[in-house]
Amino acid sequence: MKLQAAIDRVSLEDAVALALQLDGKTDIVEMGTSLVKDYGIEAMTQLREALPNTELLVDLKTIDEGAYEFRQGFKYGGDILTVMGAASLDTLRATYQVAEETGKTMMIDLLEVSEEKIAEILEFEHAIYALHHSVDRVDKQDAVGNVAHFHEKFPEIKRLAIAGGIDLAQTKALATQGLIEIVIVGSKISKASDPAAAVKEFMEGLKA
Amino acid sequence: MKLQAAIDRVSLEDAVALALQLDGKTDIVEMGTSLVKDYGIEAMTQLREALPNTELLVDLKTIDEGAYEFRQGFKYGGDILTVMGAASLDTLRATYQVAEETGKTMMIDLLEVSEEKIAEILEFEHAIYALHHSVDRVDKQDAVGNVAHFHEKFPEIKRLAIAGGIDLAQTKALATQGLIEIVIVGSKISKASDPAAAVKEFMEGLKA
Repeated sequence: MKLQAAIDRVSLEDAVALALQLDGKTDIVEMGTSLVKDYGIEAMTQLREALPNTELLVDLKTIDEGAYEFRQGFKYGGDILTVMGAASLDTLRATYQVAEETGKTMMIDLLEVSEEKIAEILEFEHAIYALHHSVDRVDKQDAVGNVAHFHEKFPEIKRLAIAGGIDLAQTKALATQGLIEIVIVGSKISKASDPAAAVKEFMEGLKA
Repeated sequence: MKLQAAIDRVSLEDAVALALQLDGKTDIVEMGTSLVKDYGIEAMTQLREALPNTELLVDLKTIDEGAYEFRQGFKYGGDILTVMGAASLDTLRATYQVAEETGKTMMIDLLEVSEEKIAEILEFEHAIYALHHSVDRVDKQDAVGNVAHFHEKFPEIKRLAIAGGIDLAQTKALATQGLIEIVIVGSKISKASDPAAAVKEFMEGLKA
């Protein structure tokens, strides 16, 4: 299991400072959607430079204009880009084609996507499917239970990630469960008093 | 009926030049999602300054972190902001609350939203609901037919917009139909050899 540490809703300066702290210590750093929308894709180059030893996921949340957004995202240094599962099948096919052509990775964000829709978008063999519990939702998710249910329903999906309020205890339980490829952690690392120490704890947790 | 001219997939410099040409000639100028993601919300201030006589819609396509994105979008000069109908009801309530508090407007983008989901998000009285045909989709939409069907299905929605490959003939037909508040036109204006002349034609068309 890999750890993806998400950076969101901070200034670009703070994001770069945090990325420098996390470089080489986590598997993947995420440039959150708020940073994309506040500063633009070109700001990605600053994060890219701060991360010589760590993969960069850019949470583009593409939902239309698939080829355009993915070409921009990979051009400016993203290794993994996100597209919404709620997008049309044509959009998902457009983003997947760009990812395959460039030898990079597409992550499908399943935020608010029904099981009926998921059943229609199973064709993206190399994509990572991310179970996602909205930050705007008040209830906390049962991560291990959600993953177990999802895997039973869609056993053909081999690459899975999970996001949304994940803490250290959930990370350990997910590692034990052994179904998730990437666990995405936001504020539990980025808002920690010592983010580098928090990342270390999570990295140890996912070896559990 | 109002005309919204969308600017997308061009450099910021070209976008500002086009906005200056359209100011005062169209009801609303849209800063497209590609401009938001390429240049960031702060670039919006340059478009805002270019449009003293025209409303600015920013196509944020918010799908999570509703309150944060809407506060940013209104702070940097948007009059109307978009949220995806595919977002969770909690996200839609968060963005609507910010719009109501600031006395500005929320547009709900119905791209790829099922009728079952629309039936669950009818509570936003002052919001504009936008029928949207993805640019990635190959088929062309039957605009007047789609609006008629939508109105029959959801007569309680009073504020309607439509987007996706709309041309001059469709604009005239929509004006005659009389159900749409805002018609959103993209490349037929922005990619015209003379955008100001194209806007004039469309503005005359919607008085038809």
